[in-house]
This record gives sequence, C-alpha cells and structure tokens, in this order.
Amino acid sequence: MTRSDGRAADELREVRFTRGWLDHAEGSVLVEFGGTRVLCAASLTEGVPRWLKGQGRGWATAEYAMLPRATNTRNSRESVRGKIGGRTHEISRLIGRALRAVVDMDKLGENTLQLDCDVLQADGGTRTAAITGAYVAMVDAFDTGRRRGWIPAAVDPLTDSVAAVSVGIVNGEPVLDLPYEEDVSADTDMNVVMTGSGKFVEVQGTAEGEPFDRTELGRLLDLAHTGCAQLAELQRTALA
Amino acid sequence: MTRSDGRAADELREVRFTRGWLDHAEGSVLVEFGGTRVLCAASLTEGVPRWLKGQGRGWATAEYAMLPRATNTRNSRESVRGKIGGRTHEISRLIGRALRAVVDMDKLGENTLQLDCDVLQADGGTRTAAITGAYVAMVDAFDTGRRRGWIPAAVDPLTDSVAAVSVGIVNGEPVLDLPYEEDVSADTDMNVVMTGSGKFVEVQGTAEGEPFDRTELGRLLDLAHTGCAQLAELQRTALA
Amino acid sequence: MTRSDGRAADELREVRFTRGWLDHAEGSVLVEFGGTRVLCAASLTEGVPRWLKGQGRGWATAEYAMLPRATNTRNSRESVRGKIGGRTHEISRLIGRALRAVVDMDKLGENTLQLDCDVLQADGGTRTAAITGAYVAMVDAFDTGRRRGWIPAAVDPLTDSVAAVSVGIVNGEPVLDLPYEEDVSADTDMNVVMTGSGKFVEVQGTAEGEPFDRTELGRLLDLAHTGCAQLAELQRTALA
Amino acid sequence: MTRSDGRAADELREVRFTRGWLDHAEGSVLVEFGGTRVLCAASLTEGVPRWLKGQGRGWATAEYAMLPRATNTRNSRESVRGKIGGRTHEISRLIGRALRAVVDMDKLGENTLQLDCDVLQADGGTRTAAITGAYVAMVDAFDTGRRRGWIPAAVDPLTDSVAAVSVGIVNGEPVLDLPYEEDVSADTDMNVVMTGSGKFVEVQGTAEGEPFDRTELGRLLDLAHTGCAQLAELQRTALA
Amino acid sequence: MTRSDGRAADELREVRFTRGWLDHAEGSVLVEFGGTRVLCAASLTEGVPRWLKGQGRGWATAEYAMLPRATNTRNSRESVRGKIGGRTHEISRLIGRALRAVVDMDKLGENTLQLDCDVLQADGGTRTAAITGAYVAMVDAFDTGRRRGWIPAAVDPLTDSVAAVSVGIVNGEPVLDLPYEEDVSADTDMNVVMTGSGKFVEVQGTAEGEPFDRTELGRLLDLAHTGCAQLAELQRTALA
Amino acid sequence: MTRSDGRAADELREVRFTRGWLDHAEGSVLVEFGGTRVLCAASLTEGVPRWLKGQGRGWATAEYAMLPRATNTRNSRESVRGKIGGRTHEISRLIGRALRAVVDMDKLGENTLQLDCDVLQADGGTRTAAITGAYVAMVDAFDTGRRRGWIPAAVDPLTDSVAAVSVGIVNGEPVLDLPYEEDVSADTDMNVVMTGSGKFVEVQGTAEGEPFDRTELGRLLDLAHTGCAQLAELQRTALA
Repeated sequence: MTRSDGRAADELREVRFTRGWLDHAEGSVLVEFGGTRVLCAASLTEGVPRWLKGQGRGWATAEYAMLPRATNTRNSRESVRGKIGGRTHEISRLIGRALRAVVDMDKLGENTLQLDCDVLQADGGTRTAAITGAYVAMVDAFDTGRRRGWIPAAVDPLTDSVAAVSVGIVNGEPVLDLPYEEDVSADTDMNVVMTGSGKFVEVQGTAEGEPFDRTELGRLLDLAHTGCAQLAELQRTALA
Repeated sequence: MTRSDGRAADELREVRFTRGWLDHAEGSVLVEFGGTRVLCAASLTEGVPRWLKGQGRGWATAEYAMLPRATNTRNSRESVRGKIGGRTHEISRLIGRALRAVVDMDKLGENTLQLDCDVLQADGGTRTAAITGAYVAMVDAFDTGRRRGWIPAAVDPLTDSVAAVSVGIVNGEPVLDLPYEEDVSADTDMNVVMTGSGKFVEVQGTAEGEPFDRTELGRLLDLAHTGCAQLAELQRTALA
Repeated sequence: MTRSDGRAADELREVRFTRGWLDHAEGSVLVEFGGTRVLCAASLTEGVPRWLKGQGRGWATAEYAMLPRATNTRNSRESVRGKIGGRTHEISRLIGRALRAVVDMDKLGENTLQLDCDVLQADGGTRTAAITGAYVAMVDAFDTGRRRGWIPAAVDPLTDSVAAVSVGIVNGEPVLDLPYEEDVSADTDMNVVMTGSGKFVEVQGTAEGEPFDRTELGRLLDLAHTGCAQLAELQRTALA
Repeated sequence: MTRSDGRAADELREVRFTRGWLDHAEGSVLVEFGGTRVLCAASLTEGVPRWLKGQGRGWATAEYAMLPRATNTRNSRESVRGKIGGRTHEISRLIGRALRAVVDMDKLGENTLQLDCDVLQADGGTRTAAITGAYVAMVDAFDTGRRRGWIPAAVDPLTDSVAAVSVGIVNGEPVLDLPYEEDVSADTDMNVVMTGSGKFVEVQGTAEGEPFDRTELGRLLDLAHTGCAQLAELQRTALA
Repeated sequence: MTRSDGRAADELREVRFTRGWLDHAEGSVLVEFGGTRVLCAASLTEGVPRWLKGQGRGWATAEYAMLPRATNTRNSRESVRGKIGGRTHEISRLIGRALRAVVDMDKLGENTLQLDCDVLQADGGTRTAAITGAYVAMVDAFDTGRRRGWIPAAVDPLTDSVAAVSVGIVNGEPVLDLPYEEDVSADTDMNVVMTGSGKFVEVQGTAEGEPFDRTELGRLLDLAHTGCAQLAELQRTALA
Repeated sequence: MTRSDGRAADELREVRFTRGWLDHAEGSVLVEFGGTRVLCAASLTEGVPRWLKGQGRGWATAEYAMLPRATNTRNSRESVRGKIGGRTHEISRLIGRALRAVVDMDKLGENTLQLDCDVLQADGGTRTAAITGAYVAMVDAFDTGRRRGWIPAAVDPLTDSVAAVSVGIVNGEPVLDLPYEEDVSADTDMNVVMTGSGKFVEVQGTAEGEPFDRTELGRLLDLAHTGCAQLAELQRTALA
C-alpha cells in the first residue's frame, strides 16, 4: 500500500514547532503537522478560580476552536451561532485532561494556566497537533512563570511530557498520523495521548465503518506508541 | 480486594430492562445498572432530514440528558442555563455513533430514529447503561416500524447488537461496571462499546490519575469483553 | 354523556403516589394521574440565595419540564433549542406559587426547597399532577430536614396541604380531571389549586372555544372542589 | 375603607385611549389606566405562517414587553439578558388568547395579526390595560385591512369585543383595578378577561397571601364583571 | 432642489422635547425630530459597578432599542430572537460615548447614570434624536440627584451640552436631518455629534453609494455644525 | 515630539502582506501592521442567499474576530460567552461596508464573497489592517473565481481598491497608524477608509478625551489621506 502523500504507514507528517509566535502570551507555539496548523497560546496568570482558593493548588484548562475557513469549505462561526458545538466541547475537554495529566497541581501553586488552541488550517489530526503543541507552549509559560516569580525558580510543575497522535485503519491497513483525506475514508479512527515515558493518558478509538477486533486494536496502539515517542523527541528538540 | 458492594472484580451490577415503559414511543426501555436508571425512548418517524432526502437511506441520532436531581446534589438544568454542557454533548454523540454502528442505513430506508436517553437516577455508568438500553428500545422501534409498514416486514436494519460497559482501575485493580463511588476514585476510567459478535465499536480510556501502561490496558479490555458479552446475553433474554 | 374512559363526570382517574422513587433526593414521588406520570424530586438544602440571607426565612421554588417523548409525538428539547418555552415557564411559576402558599417561610428558616417536576409521560393534567405530587415530596423533604437537624424537630413549616386538578367543559358538560383526549376538545379548561382545608390558592380558567358564563364557572368550581378534596385524602393516605 | 387614590372599591382609574398614536401600524392605541401606559401596535399582514397555509384561516398572536424604566427602579432589558422571562412569556400568551377569543379566524382569512403591547409606564394592571387597548388597535387594524382589500369590505372577523381588568382583596376588601401600590399588598390578585357580552374568556386568580374562599371569589367576579362592562363601554366610545 | 417635505437643505425638522414624560425616572424626555419619536429615560442610582468602586468616579452608559413596530414594517424583537443585533450595539455605544464626552466623572462621584433610549416611532435620525434627547434627560437626572443629595448641591457634573444630527448627500446635494425617505436614497450618510461649544465629539460618515471627496465632506460638516448649533439652542430653551 | 517607536508622525508601521497563507481559501492574506497580525480569508462561493436569488447580483459580507490571547491579557471567547460583543459587531459591519464600496455587485454576478478577518495578534489598528488585508484577499478570490469560471474571464467586479488607516491626536499631535500604546492615550481616535483613487468610504472619528475642532479634524484627514495612499501603493506592489 502506498499512502497518497507517499509516506510509510508508520511515518509522521513533517512536524514543526515555532515557539514564541505571539508577543504577549506567556508561552506560544505555532505547531504544524503537515498542512494542519494550530496556534497554541498559553496564558499563565496568578490566582485560581474562587472555588479553588486557599488550597495551594493550581488549575489548568484548555479551549479549542477552529477558524471558519480553516477547512476546505467555510464553517459558520460558533460565536455567531451563539453556541459551541459538541465536537469543540469534546476536544477542548480532551486537551485539558491531557495537559493536566502531566502537571503537578501542588507544585503549580495558586496559578492558572489557560491553553488556547486555535486551528488556523485543518488537514486532519487537529486535536493531536493541538495537544502536542500545547505541551510546548505550556513549558514556555512555566518558564515565564518562574522568571516572573509566580512559580519558585527551583520548582517544575511538570511530571512528564505529553504528546498525541492519530492512527487509523485505511483501506484495511493501520496508518499513523492521518491527513484529512485518509481520515474521511478510515474505517477506524483512534486518537492516542501518551506521556514522554510511554504511558497512556487517553485512548479514543471509534469504528467509523466496520467494528474492529483486538488484533487491529493492538496494531493501532503499536503505531501510536511509535508516533508519540517520535513526537516526544521532536518536542525535546524544539525546547532545547 | 473486596468491592464496596461485595461484587467480584468481573461482575456486573444487577441489570434490568423494563420494555414498553412508555405508552407513546415506538420503542422504550427503562434500563437499570444497579442504582443507575435511564429511560430510553426510541422515536421512529417516516422521512429523513432535508439534506438526506432522496437517497433511500435512513438516519439515527441520540440525545442524552440527566434530570437535575439524578445525582447526589442537584445540578442546574441545561435548559435553564441556556446551553448544553460539554459532557452532555460528548455522551449524546457517543450514543449516536454506537447505535449507527449496528444499523444498515440502506435497509432502514428513509426513516429517522431518534433515541432519547434521560438519566432518572445516576450511580455511575450512565452512558454505558444508556447505550445498552437504547439498543433494546431501538429493536422495539424497528418492530413497530415494520408493523406500521414503514419498514418492509422482511427487512431488519440491524447488523448486530450493541452494548457498553465501563471498566476502570480502582485501588490498583481492574474492575467491571463501576458505580459512582468507585468511579470517582478510579485511576483509569474506560468505556467500551462492543457488538454482540465481540468487536469493538468504541474504546475510550482516560487516565484520571496515573497514566496506564499497555498491560493494564489489556486487562481492562479483557474485562470489558467479558462484561459486554454478558450484556449482549441479557439483551437477548430481555428481547425474547 | 359517557366519557371515553368510562368515568363519571366527577370521577378522578386512578391516582398513585410512589414515594422515595429516587435514592438521593430529600423527598421524591412518582405521581400518576392515569397515564400521566410525573417524577417530583424535592431538594432541600441549607442556606438561602444571597438576597435573602440573614432574614431567618426560607425559600421554595419549582421547575417543571417534560421529557421529549413524554408526548405522542416527540418535542425537541428546550436545552437543545437553548431557550425555555412560555408554557414551561408558566407552569414552573404556578407550581412554585402553589407550594409557597402552604409553607410558612419563617418556620422553614434559612433553608431552600427546590422542587423538580419532570413529566415522564403526558396524558393531560401534567401541571395538576405535578402540584399534587410535589406536595407529597415536599412533606418527605421536610421530614428529612428535621432528621438532619436543618429544621428543628418540633417545627412543621407546613400550614396546610395543597393539591390541584383540572376541570373543563367537554361536549357541553363539565368534567373532572381531563386526559389529553378530552383536553384538546374542551371548550373551557380550568386548573384549580386548593388547600386541604378547601380554600382556593389558584384558579386559572381559559375559554379555548366559546366564552363561558357565571353558571358554568360555578359548576366547574364545584367539580374542582370535589376533586381536590379527594386528592387531599389520597395524599393523606399516601403519607400515612 | 378608603383607597389611597380616593376611588370607590368598584371604581376604575381614569381610562384613556389615544388611537392612531403610531403612523405606520395598521392599528395603534396608547392606552392608559391611570399611571399605566401601554402602547398597542397592531400589525396586519397578508399571508399566514407556513404551517397554516392553504386552510383559508388567519392567525393572531401577541407580544408583551416592558421598557426598562417603566417601573420605579430600572429592570435590565430582556434582549440584553438574552432571554425572555417567565412573566413576559405568560402575559404575551394571555393577550394572544384573549384576542383570539373574539376573532373568527375563517373570516379573517389568510391574514396575520400581530399585536405588540409595550408598557411605557407601569402602575399595576399592565396586562389588563394591554388587552383592553389591544382590542381597540385590532379593530382599527381590521378596518385598515378592509380598506386595503385584504379583508372583504363586508366581512367583520370580530365576534365580540374583549376587555380585561384586575381585581383583588386589599386589606380584606375586594377592590377593582389595582394600582401598583395596592397590587403589592393584595392578598388575592385576579385578572379577568371578558367579552363585551359579559362572558368569561379568562379567569386567573392567585392567592398571594391567604387562600381565598368561594364567597370572596364570588365578590371578585362581581367586581370584575362591573369593571369589564364599563371598559367595553369606554372601548365603544373610543371607537365611535 | 426641493426636499420632499418642503424643507430647505439646511433646515431641521420640527424638534420637540417633552420633559418628565415618565413619572418614575430621575430624568425623562420624549424627543421628536419630525416623525421620529424617542423616549429617553435617565436612571440615576447611587453607587457604581464593582470594578469602579472606591475611586470616587461615576459611570454613565446607554442602551438603545426600537419597538418592533416603530418602523414601516414590523421587525422581530431582539429579546425574542435572543440576541442583540449589530446596529443596536453600535448605536448604544455611540450614545454612551456622546454622553460621557460632556460628563466629568469625578464630579459625578460614585453614582451611575443609565440612559435608555427607546425608539417608539422611526423616521430617520433615531440615533441623533436619541443623543439630543438623552442630554436633556441627563440634565434633569442630575437635578434629581442634587435634590436627593447624591450629588452635592453646588456640583454640576456637566462640562458642556451635547447634540447630534444627521447629514447626507441626497441627489447630489448635502442636506440636514434626513427623514427615512431621504436616508435610504442618500449616497453618503453622516452622523455628527457636537458639544454646545461647537466641537466635535463624533463624526461618522459612510459612503452608501459613491465614495465622497474632501469638498463634500467639508460641506456636510458645515451643515452639521449649523444643525447642532440650532439643537443646542433648542435644548437650552427646553431646559429653561 | 518623538513617538515611542521612533516613527515620524506621518509614518506607517512596517506593513506586510503574505498572500496565500491558507491552502483552502479562494483568497487569503496574513496582513501585518507592525505587531498587529490579521489573517484574512476570502471565501468565494457560487450562489447568493435566498432573498437575493434571481437578480443577477452578488453579495459580500465580512466577519471580524479576535483570538482570546491576541491581546496583552486574555479575553474570554465570544463563542463561550454565547454572544458577540458590540465592538465585534461594529467592526464586522465596517469591514463589510468598506469592501462593498469597491465591488460592483452586478459584475460579481450571483456569487457570494465572505471575508473572515481573524486577529491573531493585536497591537492597535486591527480594523484598519483587516480592511487593508481583506482587499488583497478579495482580489485573489476574484482571480480564483475567474479561474473556476464562476466569474467570466473578462469581468472584474472591482471598481477601485480600498484601504484603511487609523489616525489620532496623541499628546496634542496628530499621528498616523497608532499602535496600542498610543491608541489608549489618544485624545481623538479616527479610522478612515479610502479608495485607491483617494475618495472617502468611511470616516469615523471619536473624541476619547477632549472634543476636537475643525482644524484638528482637517489635519487628521490629511494624515489619513497620506497613509491610505501609501497603503494603496503597498497593496498594488503585493498584488503585482
């Protein structure tokens, strides 16, 4: 089998991190997975929401959104429609859980991290690119926090790194990091979030067409493991 | 390890299906997984949404909601707040995908199935009970459809049965079908949707605390397989 | 004249109260007026809204809603539409007023009662069933409040009982407790809320077809008086 | 007993109808019940909503609203809050039913009447003033409809006139047409809508304080009858 | 060129201010520019929004709205639609800025002024009439504030008067104070807000058809200057 | 006077147009005015909204929005708040009017142009950058339209170019193209939209502090004329 863009089944698209893309944010990254481009802005502020006050713990949350013309045909704005769609909600929550999985809230102290992941261009894998980029933006935000004295200089709230990748069964073959074209024709679509040390944070597999069996699931998890390990390495390089 | 309700690690709570709980709906089931009680109402109507017309195919969708006092403390109504929360959106979409996975839309013809799953009482596993009960309500709705002549008498739009169960790691041990008490203390929480023939439709695993490894994932999938097989049997019995 | 269900003009449908239908709520009743089934959940909590604090008085309010498939054909969810309809608003306010009419807020003390009346199945008279059931759930909630020490053991915030019934003119004849079938063809439709001691809390009569005269109004009020007296007796029995 | 404004118990406040207050509306009236001032604009248009088309019948509906500073202290705008309150919904529906009670929809033909009742200043009885004024605006709108040929010259869609008044028990005494000051201290508050021929269209009585008995109800209905008869006469005069 | 209503190019329509149109508001004016009728209600209250507290400064804001049948054909209510339109937002902000331009917030002290401008009838120039009338209502509200002791007797928070007028190029000619008929056919439409001392607060010119050049702009500003000076004089007279 | 960034009073910030920043949009430009960065995506589609059908004319509209962390401190998302703010509405409408001023709708034919201007980073002048960039994106979209045959090859729907710039009085001196720092301290703030041939499309001047006189207005318009002429030249170069 040959993939339409010539990649091997277990090969990532070109991944790029442009750190500091924004002047104001405490951390920011323009992350690209091939044609998918997500602007991740990490806002770190002192203090926590009222219901968390006085516990010495921090808070981290995320919001995901897509520009109307990120996609092939224009989608109407959620702000204009006056409500947020289910998909947006779902992905925002996923990103938030992924980030919180590697943050020690006690070490973060009473600070709030807000990650905004805005998809400027979509070509499949927007949620996995968002998580992978958001981690890098978060690292930079925590650095800013230390420089500003919100987080003690010797403290690192991070317990691990986190990255995510999509895998799927396309034309009967498991493949890594699906662009839009493959995504729409995939029988099974799975998003996997893993720590840098190779553990699972989130596994979300959906049979879009035929239900899948345990063997296929195993092969997909193998692929995801490979992909996340490479992404963790790329994150390290970008942050070096 | 002993579970607080005395069950074995791989034991389901008592599951009950009360078919025909509603007089008007084409199919309806009050499904109970222990203290979790979900009213599943299947509305079958002739015709499809405008954008599907003329293709000879059907449509199936689902909405999940929870009564304000289904839970231990009262939650405000989403209708009063004026917006649907992310969790509600997420589960509604999950139920819809699970049902569509076992419906042949061409055989359904230009008919629309709408599944309403309203949680009357919540004690963990509301989404898995909803899917499991919704399948039974759907079977009854298709029967009604055949009786009314909307679906030809010899046609069965169903390709398989579908059921769902939650599994998780509680106090370091994988357990099946978590009540609320176990759910809040679980390190990993996984919802698995499977067909009657033992294939996966959906796997959603989340590390709430510690990330999990491949071995733990495997044990959770084993448990889920066992649970879904039992549920499929209970569905068959209920429908007999 | 014979009614379609064989009842006499001044006869109630079968009324049933299932107390304690919910495990969590401080008081709960599944009330049935024939095919109409309303789940009444009374949530009692310590404290009052901010604007009432420090006055030593309690607060009671109610919300009414209908499941989408409570009716013959499915209605869209108000949470999905993003707004509450006029009818829902109107009935929620009516139930709240009816309950407050028999509660001594000074005796309730700084506690809040929230009554949720969710119509699981509708066959006419949903608002009157809701009021009649809500009273029973409220009694149980106050008992719980006393057991938990929120209300002093010797204090009863209730000044009377309250029940409601619909009456109407169908085919020229006044009848009691109309099911849906009669309701839609009634010329005049009246909902009457009365205390156990036989006084009026609310009289809401509407000429759907022909306006009505004073004589007809008198006959409807007589019927309502009879019906509410019977309901008060049934409430007493249920609570015994 | 003397009323604060010196009126007898069965005396209306000064009632004024200024017809044609608006240049554009097919019918319009500024109606005043003492300090209560409601602008009633009747919009008559050819055609009916889609679901009514082809039946040869008309449609009439009403919307009620209050300017933010109609009252003693400013209320926030419902448009700014983004939702319509229960009271507004309730009154809009009441006005609509009252008007439809005296319109023969077959005679109206496929035309739509929309009555906007905007309270410019509120001093009790805004809903009854709105109904009473809306009737006059409606008469003018039907005249315009005949002049424009939307309604045949010889056809009158009206079957009767309609007016409304509030009555209540204040300091133990039944009184007619309550201003705000009496309204807030009333034990029982009743709004009665009657036709010009003296029949009831709507009776809405609420015990704000003490529940009321049949005798009190009778006295309130007597007062309302007197008041509505006078209003019907004032409407006739205004329309002469 | 003759204007359809016979006015000279630099002539205002008849302008009328009816002060004290409302009984409750601290200041109120029904302002008329020909057929345009706007009810301006100024609510003055002690205290400021939370974020301004303790700075000794006041706050002034405005809301503009139009009754559904202010116009030739009925517009749906923004409260019913559940959102405020762009035009409404834009004009509300404009009015607020215009008023704040002549109020010394330090002198106002910790008091809040809320101006509600509701268009009862629209015939062009509703925003300029609103600003011009709102100024008069504001003067009256500050008087009330002094009488009630919220503003010291010797303090006048006003630094100047403010008025507004529309100008436009109709059939190639610059004209002052456009009614609806001219407004829709104007090539350029400009709203100008000026102080009583002849300075600009706001200049908003829009080429609806042909873009305009500097000469035309100059002639429009001349006209606006003339119009605003006359309005300032009329305001003084009305307030005398 | 020296400006904080060292520019002369009549000097633009560095302006950059990156055409084709998006793969999918019919036209797209990332426009930068110094630190202000706006992504302009022009979506051209065949057909027009229903109410325009059959008239042979096109339609052009625009939406403006800002990413939450485009600014120095994070703003909440309008989609999350569920409503669009007044400022967003106002600017969206301004951009739409500016573009329509240079499009001949008859020549565009029954095609719809939708311009999305999303501010990725804000440093003053976002609306003027948006208009200036949107024009370039629109030119590219019309080219795409001609290539796809939606617009005849020989037809150019454009009548002129359009650009916009901000001017203001800062520390008593008129300056061109204000960054955020100057914007907040400006006494007068003016946005001017001009065609490539030097005519005004829109003039919006607001006295934030002191009202301004005719002389100051003249100097601001001179500056804006200079700035827009340079921007028109830069647009031409970018499109060459």
